[in-house]
Amino acid sequence: MTIEASGQDGASRSRRLRLGMVGGGRGAFIGAVHRIAARLDDRWSLVAGALSSSPEKARASGADLLIAPDRVYDDAAAMAKAEAAREDRIDAVSIVTPNHAHFEPAKHFLEAGFHVICDKPLTTGLAQARELARIAKNKGVVFAVTHNYTGYPLIREARALVRSGALGAVRVVQVEYAQDWLATRIEEEGQKQAAWRTDPAKSGPAGSVGDIGSHAFNLAEFVAGVKVERLCADLTAFAPGRRLDDNAHMLLRFAGGARGALWCSQVAVGEENGLTLRVYGETGSLSWAQENPNVLVHTPIGEPPRLIRRNGAGSSAVSQRVSRTPSGHPEGYLEGFANLYSDIADQIEARLAGTSAPSEALDVPTVDDGVRGVAFIEAAVRSSQGDARWEAIEDG
Amino acid sequence: MTIEASGQDGASRSRRLRLGMVGGGRGAFIGAVHRIAARLDDRWSLVAGALSSSPEKARASGADLLIAPDRVYDDAAAMAKAEAAREDRIDAVSIVTPNHAHFEPAKHFLEAGFHVICDKPLTTGLAQARELARIAKNKGVVFAVTHNYTGYPLIREARALVRSGALGAVRVVQVEYAQDWLATRIEEEGQKQAAWRTDPAKSGPAGSVGDIGSHAFNLAEFVAGVKVERLCADLTAFAPGRRLDDNAHMLLRFAGGARGALWCSQVAVGEENGLTLRVYGETGSLSWAQENPNVLVHTPIGEPPRLIRRNGAGSSAVSQRVSRTPSGHPEGYLEGFANLYSDIADQIEARLAGTSAPSEALDVPTVDDGVRGVAFIEAAVRSSQGDARWEAIEDG
Amino acid sequence: MTIEASGQDGASRSRRLRLGMVGGGRGAFIGAVHRIAARLDDRWSLVAGALSSSPEKARASGADLLIAPDRVYDDAAAMAKAEAAREDRIDAVSIVTPNHAHFEPAKHFLEAGFHVICDKPLTTGLAQARELARIAKNKGVVFAVTHNYTGYPLIREARALVRSGALGAVRVVQVEYAQDWLATRIEEEGQKQAAWRTDPAKSGPAGSVGDIGSHAFNLAEFVAGVKVERLCADLTAFAPGRRLDDNAHMLLRFAGGARGALWCSQVAVGEENGLTLRVYGETGSLSWAQENPNVLVHTPIGEPPRLIRRNGAGSSAVSQRVSRTPSGHPEGYLEGFANLYSDIADQIEARLAGTSAPSEALDVPTVDDGVRGVAFIEAAVRSSQGDARWEAIEDG
Amino acid sequence: MTIEASGQDGASRSRRLRLGMVGGGRGAFIGAVHRIAARLDDRWSLVAGALSSSPEKARASGADLLIAPDRVYDDAAAMAKAEAAREDRIDAVSIVTPNHAHFEPAKHFLEAGFHVICDKPLTTGLAQARELARIAKNKGVVFAVTHNYTGYPLIREARALVRSGALGAVRVVQVEYAQDWLATRIEEEGQKQAAWRTDPAKSGPAGSVGDIGSHAFNLAEFVAGVKVERLCADLTAFAPGRRLDDNAHMLLRFAGGARGALWCSQVAVGEENGLTLRVYGETGSLSWAQENPNVLVHTPIGEPPRLIRRNGAGSSAVSQRVSRTPSGHPEGYLEGFANLYSDIADQIEARLAGTSAPSEALDVPTVDDGVRGVAFIEAAVRSSQGDARWEAIEDG
Repeated sequence: MTIEASGQDGASRSRRLRLGMVGGGRGAFIGAVHRIAARLDDRWSLVAGALSSSPEKARASGADLLIAPDRVYDDAAAMAKAEAAREDRIDAVSIVTPNHAHFEPAKHFLEAGFHVICDKPLTTGLAQARELARIAKNKGVVFAVTHNYTGYPLIREARALVRSGALGAVRVVQVEYAQDWLATRIEEEGQKQAAWRTDPAKSGPAGSVGDIGSHAFNLAEFVAGVKVERLCADLTAFAPGRRLDDNAHMLLRFAGGARGALWCSQVAVGEENGLTLRVYGETGSLSWAQENPNVLVHTPIGEPPRLIRRNGAGSSAVSQRVSRTPSGHPEGYLEGFANLYSDIADQIEARLAGTSAPSEALDVPTVDDGVRGVAFIEAAVRSSQGDARWEAIEDG
Repeated sequence: MTIEASGQDGASRSRRLRLGMVGGGRGAFIGAVHRIAARLDDRWSLVAGALSSSPEKARASGADLLIAPDRVYDDAAAMAKAEAAREDRIDAVSIVTPNHAHFEPAKHFLEAGFHVICDKPLTTGLAQARELARIAKNKGVVFAVTHNYTGYPLIREARALVRSGALGAVRVVQVEYAQDWLATRIEEEGQKQAAWRTDPAKSGPAGSVGDIGSHAFNLAEFVAGVKVERLCADLTAFAPGRRLDDNAHMLLRFAGGARGALWCSQVAVGEENGLTLRVYGETGSLSWAQENPNVLVHTPIGEPPRLIRRNGAGSSAVSQRVSRTPSGHPEGYLEGFANLYSDIADQIEARLAGTSAPSEALDVPTVDDGVRGVAFIEAAVRSSQGDARWEAIEDG
Repeated sequence: MTIEASGQDGASRSRRLRLGMVGGGRGAFIGAVHRIAARLDDRWSLVAGALSSSPEKARASGADLLIAPDRVYDDAAAMAKAEAAREDRIDAVSIVTPNHAHFEPAKHFLEAGFHVICDKPLTTGLAQARELARIAKNKGVVFAVTHNYTGYPLIREARALVRSGALGAVRVVQVEYAQDWLATRIEEEGQKQAAWRTDPAKSGPAGSVGDIGSHAFNLAEFVAGVKVERLCADLTAFAPGRRLDDNAHMLLRFAGGARGALWCSQVAVGEENGLTLRVYGETGSLSWAQENPNVLVHTPIGEPPRLIRRNGAGSSAVSQRVSRTPSGHPEGYLEGFANLYSDIADQIEARLAGTSAPSEALDVPTVDDGVRGVAFIEAAVRSSQGDARWEAIEDG
Repeated sequence: MTIEASGQDGASRSRRLRLGMVGGGRGAFIGAVHRIAARLDDRWSLVAGALSSSPEKARASGADLLIAPDRVYDDAAAMAKAEAAREDRIDAVSIVTPNHAHFEPAKHFLEAGFHVICDKPLTTGLAQARELARIAKNKGVVFAVTHNYTGYPLIREARALVRSGALGAVRVVQVEYAQDWLATRIEEEGQKQAAWRTDPAKSGPAGSVGDIGSHAFNLAEFVAGVKVERLCADLTAFAPGRRLDDNAHMLLRFAGGARGALWCSQVAVGEENGLTLRVYGETGSLSWAQENPNVLVHTPIGEPPRLIRRNGAGSSAVSQRVSRTPSGHPEGYLEGFANLYSDIADQIEARLAGTSAPSEALDVPTVDDGVRGVAFIEAAVRSSQGDARWEAIEDG
């Protein structure tokens, strides 16, 4: 263990970045997470929001969050327009609405020239996803998609280890994301989070595959450094009457010959947020589990497994950079999420300053990753509809 | 923890059963395991053997094992004939040769009326497997196939829990068996165990699928209590030039609607003997790992996970029966294997006595399970050859 | 797992509390932790500070933290005086200096009527500690001592379980706090954190016992709900030439008859921040480890161990209240620390509003706990000087 | 993982050693364990016994174990005499009676010139222990004391690592042995194992300290390679009315300056057979837990912890020699116990052959270790009677 100063709130900066938020009003889940993540390293101030489609709720939520009343908006379009006109306008907007309500707001803010942070999956269909990517590139803005699990320090370490060649050529990738909160039909009992996630109109063509499978897919490629070319998927809705999958099994074939399996489930009784990743290469392997994220097991061939602990012995600068506390002081989900916000801040500040962001800050998933996530979802749905035939990921 | 007498060597018996062995001479692996397993509870004496195809080696091996020279045979056929003629003939024979050398010896001993204990996979082809099953039934003998992992006390506990309805209807079954000892082509370096396992002439049509995948398949069905109807398999040989699969991924569909995945690999660097099983039902789940087999995690829906420890609080008679030591005194692979031998002894002794064996002693996998294992292997190979199309397990 | 809104930043409040800080300038460790903790739930704004004894460093640190220049002070006395005179004065001050520099600042701020948050150990001697307690009571202010490990949700859960009688009378308490960062004499190599902690003039009469043993002691009493009456301590300095203990073993006798052991070490190679606590009672036990703080093992007598997961099945309102994320989304050290800051905010806001704070918010360790911590340190030092004779904790 | 032949039953030997047993009749616990241990590697045949002080029970027990009726004796003295007169006399005797009934049988067999294997603690008083040691040396026989935990392969590995200098000078030793089976007064309910262990007339001056504390003490010294010079002990009987300690805490001071703590308890609810050992040196540490004995954690200073798995990567010949199965195939308590029996067989066979036993086979605890164990117990009792004053281990 080392005890050292935390760097994230120590560097000289003249101001905090100004953040706006679409969605995330009272009763929301992920909006609050985004706000904590933005706050953690003191790089952002939340100053504006279109927090709810209900004007009263939007105002009450804005008051909760101490946002000035004149910057609490009724909708994203109005917000984009008004903010664009302000001297002290927001630097970026976070879009934290349900899946079907990402596209319109994102488009408004992109067209007004704002940097955008958007929840995943990017959209409910590939055409919209591609349109956002196109506009974002035309505008030259930062567009981050919050595949937040990539923000865990030891996930960054794992990616760096694979890139370093420590594992040799990747042969097998096993990724899982298992939860149990939809084991019964709580969407029938007024559970708001369950309701929209199991509703095709709001969630898109997939349930568990979009909600958590897309994270698993993203994480696997992020770390393994190889792309899934084809998949073979078996989607199931176990809860009687549910309209979208709550469980999916997939076989994966990667460019370069690696094989793998992906399992996502929201009916796996006893599993809370069981995202695990294992990567096996010719000369080594890695194993990591989100629920105890401060340990990464690295086994070089013919050697004992090594426990690389966040910020501990054997960890490298790439993960130390995104750690706030000494090893042994566990950091978790919020800190990993915050790393995305701080990296995004690095990117935006670099643009404001006319400099380059640290290369590590560019690891944040982009709109292209968002497009790829939607392509993955569509491939999985197509495959399953074809009785688990092989389908390609069509994000080209 | 309770401290109680171990029952297995305490009950009154007039003699030990007499065991013969085919295979298992000097340099073999699994033969020694069978012998320890047979010895552990003092139910068997090894008195005869055809231990090697090399006569000199057979004799040297027999001497090592203190077998009387007149009962050290040159081949299985001679042994079956000679033993059948003896007053003090063996009660059963264990066949522990490589896969391709199970059928002939088994047939000889069956035809001579002996009980047979045979290693898995039963044969290298389905027709032969069915023939053994047919003969065994005609002869009315005990025919056990050593899917030894079913002998672990907590696997018995898990099976009983599923049967009790504690999990409700099974929804998802995840089973894996990962090793790394074939990560490189050690078959080229004179490693005898690797050589025959990677040789189609000795191993049969599959490599990892036959060697360990068949265990995983058997264990999944044993515990989950539902049968795989169809599978979709992707077999790979990662080591350059290897002729049989050293890795396989499968999607599983079970009778009754459960879904699952099976992964077996012998190139998963860092994995030693990583057989793990998870079963998720409507109202509970189970999780078990062979490498730490004295704990079974049972999570009833809406409750905290419970750690059921072998012979400990919350365990039932079904697993206590096959435990020798108090909880907290770890039992392992050999003890689990020994449970099969002691259950087989119970079966044979009951026949000798004209009584019925305890119903729990009938849990040992039979020749029908052996046939099913071969059918599984063939289905997996067919599926993979068909680019992972769905194939049925044809053991009917 | 449940997915629900995070409450901490959602309740209506008219403003953030204003926080000042003494210590915590560039290069400090714990000051940054306090700031993150204060920020996490958006209850506090850092608006003033005497961040360093070096005026230049104080100013640079203030600029780093975006504190208005007129509220960056050269010393605590000046700050207390100036802030007391402001309309928008701070609501509370955090004192995050080395041990020897707690007393004077605390006294200044107390006498000026401010609420105080002070790092542990409270002071380097018992007389000063008692004086602070006396003044705090006279002034009627909130005085919190940051024994931050009490802020972990499952530590709150553990305490509540003991209080509920689930364990029956407590019999044995095992507490450890093991680190390795002082395994060699890094204080000789310019490591600032090590330098003051191993210097009697700055750390006080004890090294590891004050730095981490006092946390272990506090946590044991916090959860077990029984007080240590006497201890028997063996303090050692293993690193050659080190002037203060870097390791200590203690036997503990509790009021009511429970016994226990405490081990703290800063030379335990391989240990990062290994704070673990086990409490055994007549009818149950608890086990918790700081490095994986989202699980609490509760074993009722005669039943399997239960894994109570933060915010998960079997957890109660007392820990759910201080959780921000659903179960399975790990929270760590910073979140636990933040719970203290939010509870302190609850206490201060209740005073501002003339209401009562939620009773759970009163769980934050107070100046009396701080006095007791110093009494513990002195008892340990006396005992060890007396060759490990029994000594009482004299905080009366 | 490697798959190799098991050596223990493969080497050429002309016969099995003949074993006699004192104690271990129907209803006993540890006798059955000794028998399995002796049998496991096929080095011993049990051929004679004085299995119970009740003649009928002795005979019934002998029949259970298939011992020839003429070698089932009524008492140890008669057995020693009769066996000494036989051509095919036993090679060694195992004494597995309660503590108070070790001395007399051991003396009889020693005086008749037999090798002796004796359970621990050796005797209920130091004078008797020393007398056995004196006679054993005069007779020149093998006298093994079954501190069976030293037989675990990774305990041998740990000892070898310490000896190799991998940890540098040892600084801290933490050893625990926690159980819960005496949490209530089951000795009042006819539990035979509990009855004698809590009876001073049968157990000796200590309860938990003799039963399990002595194992912990032995294991700590065995691995750490340094001797405890003084200890400071606090013994407690928590169960109301119990006459012997069921819990003890100790501070330890080792020759060479290392410090440590020992905790043993039989009332620690939830603990089954929780024997754990950690050794911290200047340049590395080791951690091992009996309940998952196939992993040893070795952390070199400044490096990640390494998981050394039995017979796996990074393990050495010293532990591979006492492994029967490849890594990943868990071995447990019985296999560890069996390693003692096989090492004792090596010692005796070497004497019969006039050769030297492999040096590793000499690691089995001897009568001197037995004497030291009794001295430890007496020191602990004296210390506790003196209110936890320092007492020396007087085995000189």
